[in-house]
Amino acid sequence: MYEVMQTRISKLVHTTAFEIFIIIVIVISALGIGAETFELSPDFRDVMGIFDYGVSIFFLIEISFRFLAEKNKGQFFKSGWNIFDLTIVLVSLMPLEYSQVAIVGRLIRVFRVLRLISVVPELRILIGSLFKAMPQFGYVILLMFIIFYIYGAMGNFLFRDINPELWGNISLCMLTLFRIMTLEDWTDILYETMEVMPFSWIFYLSFIFLTTFVFLNMVIGIIVSVMEEERMKRNEVSLLDQQKDMKSLITVIEELKAEVGILKNQMKKDPA
Amino acid sequence: MYEVMQTRISKLVHTTAFEIFIIIVIVISALGIGAETFELSPDFRDVMGIFDYGVSIFFLIEISFRFLAEKNKGQFFKSGWNIFDLTIVLVSLMPLEYSQVAIVGRLIRVFRVLRLISVVPELRILIGSLFKAMPQFGYVILLMFIIFYIYGAMGNFLFRDINPELWGNISLCMLTLFRIMTLEDWTDILYETMEVMPFSWIFYLSFIFLTTFVFLNMVIGIIVSVMEEERMKRNEVSLLDQQKDMKSLITVIEELKAEVGILKNQMKKDPA
Amino acid sequence: MYEVMQTRISKLVHTTAFEIFIIIVIVISALGIGAETFELSPDFRDVMGIFDYGVSIFFLIEISFRFLAEKNKGQFFKSGWNIFDLTIVLVSLMPLEYSQVAIVGRLIRVFRVLRLISVVPELRILIGSLFKAMPQFGYVILLMFIIFYIYGAMGNFLFRDINPELWGNISLCMLTLFRIMTLEDWTDILYETMEVMPFSWIFYLSFIFLTTFVFLNMVIGIIVSVMEEERMKRNEVSLLDQQKDMKSLITVIEELKAEVGILKNQMKKDPA
Amino acid sequence: MYEVMQTRISKLVHTTAFEIFIIIVIVISALGIGAETFELSPDFRDVMGIFDYGVSIFFLIEISFRFLAEKNKGQFFKSGWNIFDLTIVLVSLMPLEYSQVAIVGRLIRVFRVLRLISVVPELRILIGSLFKAMPQFGYVILLMFIIFYIYGAMGNFLFRDINPELWGNISLCMLTLFRIMTLEDWTDILYETMEVMPFSWIFYLSFIFLTTFVFLNMVIGIIVSVMEEERMKRNEVSLLDQQKDMKSLITVIEELKAEVGILKNQMKKDPA
Repeated sequence: MYEVMQTRISKLVHTTAFEIFIIIVIVISALGIGAETFELSPDFRDVMGIFDYGVSIFFLIEISFRFLAEKNKGQFFKSGWNIFDLTIVLVSLMPLEYSQVAIVGRLIRVFRVLRLISVVPELRILIGSLFKAMPQFGYVILLMFIIFYIYGAMGNFLFRDINPELWGNISLCMLTLFRIMTLEDWTDILYETMEVMPFSWIFYLSFIFLTTFVFLNMVIGIIVSVMEEERMKRNEVSLLDQQKDMKSLITVIEELKAEVGILKNQMKKDPA
Repeated sequence: MYEVMQTRISKLVHTTAFEIFIIIVIVISALGIGAETFELSPDFRDVMGIFDYGVSIFFLIEISFRFLAEKNKGQFFKSGWNIFDLTIVLVSLMPLEYSQVAIVGRLIRVFRVLRLISVVPELRILIGSLFKAMPQFGYVILLMFIIFYIYGAMGNFLFRDINPELWGNISLCMLTLFRIMTLEDWTDILYETMEVMPFSWIFYLSFIFLTTFVFLNMVIGIIVSVMEEERMKRNEVSLLDQQKDMKSLITVIEELKAEVGILKNQMKKDPA
Repeated sequence: MYEVMQTRISKLVHTTAFEIFIIIVIVISALGIGAETFELSPDFRDVMGIFDYGVSIFFLIEISFRFLAEKNKGQFFKSGWNIFDLTIVLVSLMPLEYSQVAIVGRLIRVFRVLRLISVVPELRILIGSLFKAMPQFGYVILLMFIIFYIYGAMGNFLFRDINPELWGNISLCMLTLFRIMTLEDWTDILYETMEVMPFSWIFYLSFIFLTTFVFLNMVIGIIVSVMEEERMKRNEVSLLDQQKDMKSLITVIEELKAEVGILKNQMKKDPA
Repeated sequence: MYEVMQTRISKLVHTTAFEIFIIIVIVISALGIGAETFELSPDFRDVMGIFDYGVSIFFLIEISFRFLAEKNKGQFFKSGWNIFDLTIVLVSLMPLEYSQVAIVGRLIRVFRVLRLISVVPELRILIGSLFKAMPQFGYVILLMFIIFYIYGAMGNFLFRDINPELWGNISLCMLTLFRIMTLEDWTDILYETMEVMPFSWIFYLSFIFLTTFVFLNMVIGIIVSVMEEERMKRNEVSLLDQQKDMKSLITVIEELKAEVGILKNQMKKDPA
């Protein structure tokens, strides 16, 4: 009897209608969260609260269904997306209604919109490819961090007394440097320090050149590596085809050679 | 008699002179719209109004000619560009002279400049390729929207009381986030919230990193896919050539093998 | 006697020492122009004036030498770089010492620095490749101009009364739009019009999306076309090699087949 | 006995544990430098000073160990990274405690963080590839400099009296132009000069177009050249393989032809 139920649930879970229904629920709950940011009547706010709770419970039921539909229960928890879904739903069901923690509770509820990614397969693939691209950034980000740290310490030593709000300690310095990297009003900072240290433009320009250069190289590196990967996939196939062609050619010729060899031997014997 | 006229119109419509004449009319009407934005004498303004109406009627006649020149009348309305042209001209002929609606009428007249795109073939191709590139953006834009929505809701919860003009509701939040993504005076917003919440830089930096990362990946994705497409086209041709070469080689060798086989058989029979 | 002199000049003009000497003169004259921008004593300024005139005359002599060294005098004026050099030098020799025109004279002298490009071969190649890339931009720039014109006219109709300094006429509008495209304080303009027209953000966002999209597509288009060109060059060579290999293979096999054919014929005759 | 010690040190230096230990020391010393930028008790500051000196001495010992581990002592100083390491450590050991020079001493200590690059192999490779990409920029940077110099001189001539703080001399001009290239509040500068010279927008727009164009071309040039390089490496291998295949094919057929030739000769002799 359990198996019958499992088959039915499994069928239900994999229908397109079920998927679309879940997407609709996620979108409506997202709209609900958005609506709450506007001025609302208290009545509507109460209704929203109940609806919100309902959505969380619905999600819990949905995930339970998916769990039941899975034959190999252990497999279920090996999928990162399932754990992701479950965590979001469980956390959003926690009763956090005290002033301070209420904000946390609300923030967590927002993350339910992320379920859209785990439900729409195309978005899952997209996120997957984004995650795959990340390790390539690894050492470049480390290098960037070293550059930021060194310039941060230098900036603190040089400009601390000029503007302590921007250069007061190394973490403030690094935030200021990030601002300079985004070129956001960086000349205001430059002009301020240039009044005291006329050569401080070297600090800013070298930093902008360095970070732009490293950033550009990272982007180019990624483009090249992604294209290489694509080409590798394609090339392997075409190379295999070519090698097969070549091999069949050579075997055909070898066979021919063997036959000619037989002919020659026959000729030698014949006249005798 | 109708057919004679149709042939004549068809010839006229496809001459280069006709095309250039229409381009000139569009450009002059565009210049007229531009001229109206400067301070003008009322007399000139009146003349412009009449000229403007004349241009619309001329366009109507031109499109009628094209319609007459088309043999298969149904085909005419299947071309998106024809519908585009007709809509612009018909709308610009609507008599909207009341204060409020007059602005709408004027705005619509501006869109007549867009006819330049439908008349110049190179621009049509360009727009065509832009439209073809759009679906690739589809899911990335959806992902971007999800990121904006989640950060928007979070920004509203966290910073609503700090600056309601920027974070008052979710649509204001998303506009503010778009501003942050363009790095436009984003540190003003950052410093404002950091005074109340010292760790709010995490919100901004993570948002900038995330959107930059997704944007970069989209750009790279498009570059790679466009180049793949180009290569596919080229490769198919060269692969076909190679396969043909290989096949002709193999048939030549097979023929050779067959002849050697005949030789061998002759030899066997001979001594007998 | 004239020919002897020509040969000597031709030899002199093509020595590396001569080229380096000219580069040094250009650099010194450039430094002179730079030095004049600082506060200088009148004496030094007078010396600079004489030196400056001397440089122009030196350049005139140098170009004359090049002209004399050229055997085919007509060919000399077919090179764009020669005309470029001559124009700069001749114009810089014009006596413009009256207050108003003096600025023009000075500006022209600045352009003598451009001679560095015509003298250093690597820079000539670089500029050549930049010019070659330009026509590709052609229609994209036309499309951009159409977008700017339409948005400019719309901006004038909608926002003229809100801020006439930014939206007063179509040329001001287009400058404002260029500013918005560079994302320079674009939110100041946005917030200003949003107070009167709350939905004016659609105007700005659609414009930013459109121009970014067209710009991105242009960049990608250039990358792809440059890479295609490179590949074409390389591929032609490798394809030719492959085709040669194939042809030699086929001729070798055809020869073999012919010989086997002769063999068979001999066999047929033999038993007879 | 010396050799035994050398072998031991060589073994020690190449263990992963040793490398990780050095990385930890560098990171801790970096954290120390960062910590000093915050408000600290004098006691802690004293401890930091001693710790800092200890780190420098530890680095000196470490480099000595590496030197001892190297069999060919001359080879040691041929590696740029070794000289880099040694310079940093020696300079950071110099006793600079006088007010003015103290800042220099501190700045130098910051550079010890750069040792992270020389210790982590992946970062060394990254930096190596960055340095390799640099010469490609060479002439483009020269071209950029020429553009900056010419626009700088022009800017000085035209706008000197409008705002001497921005256009006072050619070095200020070039800094202002760099600011304009980064699009940082460039319209403030534009509006200021447009009040006096209404057509000065041509100066700014042409400059922005030119630098963007050259910059874009540089980026594209680098992408293309990097990808060409990658492909060259790969293609050489595949081309070699193909050529080998072709050669072996041709030799096999030539052998076959030779055998058929022998056959024919035998036939000719036989009937005789």
